[in-house]
Amino acid sequence: MKKKPLILVTNDDGISAPGIRTLISIMNDIGDVVVVAPDSPQSAMGHAITINSTLECSEIKLDSGPQKEYSCSGTPADCVKLGINELLIRRPDICVSGINHGSNSSINVIYSGTMSAAIEASIEGVPAIGFSLLDYNWSADFEPIKNYVKNITLAALKNGIPNGNALNVNFPKLGNDEIRGVKICRQAKAFWIEKFDKRTNPQGKEYYWLTGEFIDEDNKKDTDEWALKNKYISIVPVKFDMTDHKNIEQLKSWKF
Amino acid sequence: MKKKPLILVTNDDGISAPGIRTLISIMNDIGDVVVVAPDSPQSAMGHAITINSTLECSEIKLDSGPQKEYSCSGTPADCVKLGINELLIRRPDICVSGINHGSNSSINVIYSGTMSAAIEASIEGVPAIGFSLLDYNWSADFEPIKNYVKNITLAALKNGIPNGNALNVNFPKLGNDEIRGVKICRQAKAFWIEKFDKRTNPQGKEYYWLTGEFIDEDNKKDTDEWALKNKYISIVPVKFDMTDHKNIEQLKSWKF
Repeated sequence: MKKKPLILVTNDDGISAPGIRTLISIMNDIGDVVVVAPDSPQSAMGHAITINSTLECSEIKLDSGPQKEYSCSGTPADCVKLGINELLIRRPDICVSGINHGSNSSINVIYSGTMSAAIEASIEGVPAIGFSLLDYNWSADFEPIKNYVKNITLAALKNGIPNGNALNVNFPKLGNDEIRGVKICRQAKAFWIEKFDKRTNPQGKEYYWLTGEFIDEDNKKDTDEWALKNKYISIVPVKFDMTDHKNIEQLKSWKF
Repeated sequence: MKKKPLILVTNDDGISAPGIRTLISIMNDIGDVVVVAPDSPQSAMGHAITINSTLECSEIKLDSGPQKEYSCSGTPADCVKLGINELLIRRPDICVSGINHGSNSSINVIYSGTMSAAIEASIEGVPAIGFSLLDYNWSADFEPIKNYVKNITLAALKNGIPNGNALNVNFPKLGNDEIRGVKICRQAKAFWIEKFDKRTNPQGKEYYWLTGEFIDEDNKKDTDEWALKNKYISIVPVKFDMTDHKNIEQLKSWKF
């Protein structure tokens, strides 16, 4: 029999979040699981890494599963770096991140700690998937998507993720019988219109809360936003080369 | 006479860093300058934004220049959001970020607070440039690159940055007469091999410092790393669509 795959599990909601506990239990069915996850929530951390302060990491046990678990003081990208380069006995066969409580579709990929972990793994040459459910609730129901999470991971292990991409997988908040299947998509062109809620603290100093409205200005049928609105699971292949290659020639005409 | 351009200036080394003070003085020659920058260093913050805590922002005056300045408790991306959506009286004509003390070439674009600010502006539809000098020293000499910073900004204002890109501009650490000019490049395929320096604190608990070695496995002549090593200024057009479009068809063949 083939050796069981070694699976690195992380997230950005913190090691005790229901989403990662669900992901761990699914991965225990597939392979040998090592969890390296933040000790506290790290949402919207983007691709932050800790270079000007220290990292602490403790082996812990949060449930009765067979996985090994480390709780880490850093960001999701730190956790992946620590996992791959320091804690795991060999290179993982795959890194899975999530299941995030809330969407990481379209432009959210760039703010997402969940996806920064997956992208970090892909930079280090490890196939990676970020999973997110469109339900911010801490008591979100992950039951309807468990089989999809398992099957997408198995497909990635079987086929290999081409071109060093990380996969950004988002699930609509629907019952299992309502989900219409999987769509491979591109990132929708969307953005947030920020609104800053300006308040005054008890000492009279002004401060802000960032809020915003999500604007999808794309709405084509090949986007992740379209898929999710139409009851599909969206999978976007994400690359870490941020160059706009088709723009290089045009810029060469500039005079400085 | 045409109206002077409105320029938003930010960085990730903090509002008092020599690099941003130099950038402000250059921009004062070009247009009306508003600075919205972090009150403390935010290096390697990636594209983090502050959603689970409050932001504070104070108008301050650090030198005798004509610019308006705000010091902000958030990340570089927060500063850009606040600047564009709350503090500036109209949309800026351009956003410039830096001058960073240290390189943001190749894969560093993804960890960079300097570039996250520029990318955030580009997401919001504002032309943007991140400037970085390959000298981590706080007393780095920005004199040799001042004219290039000015001319690149003027070229961007004149031509418009195509396709909603942000420009990632890196300068070699060289005298003005040694710099051979500007190259439009793609992001080199490079990564960091992490080494974790494991130590024990006075209480006997282990902790880590992240260190690493930069590996350029690309070395083609059209990359930013090649340009910088060969005494050129590198400019990479950066896009916020992270989809690997050419991979979509291949993934459609997967069975779930």
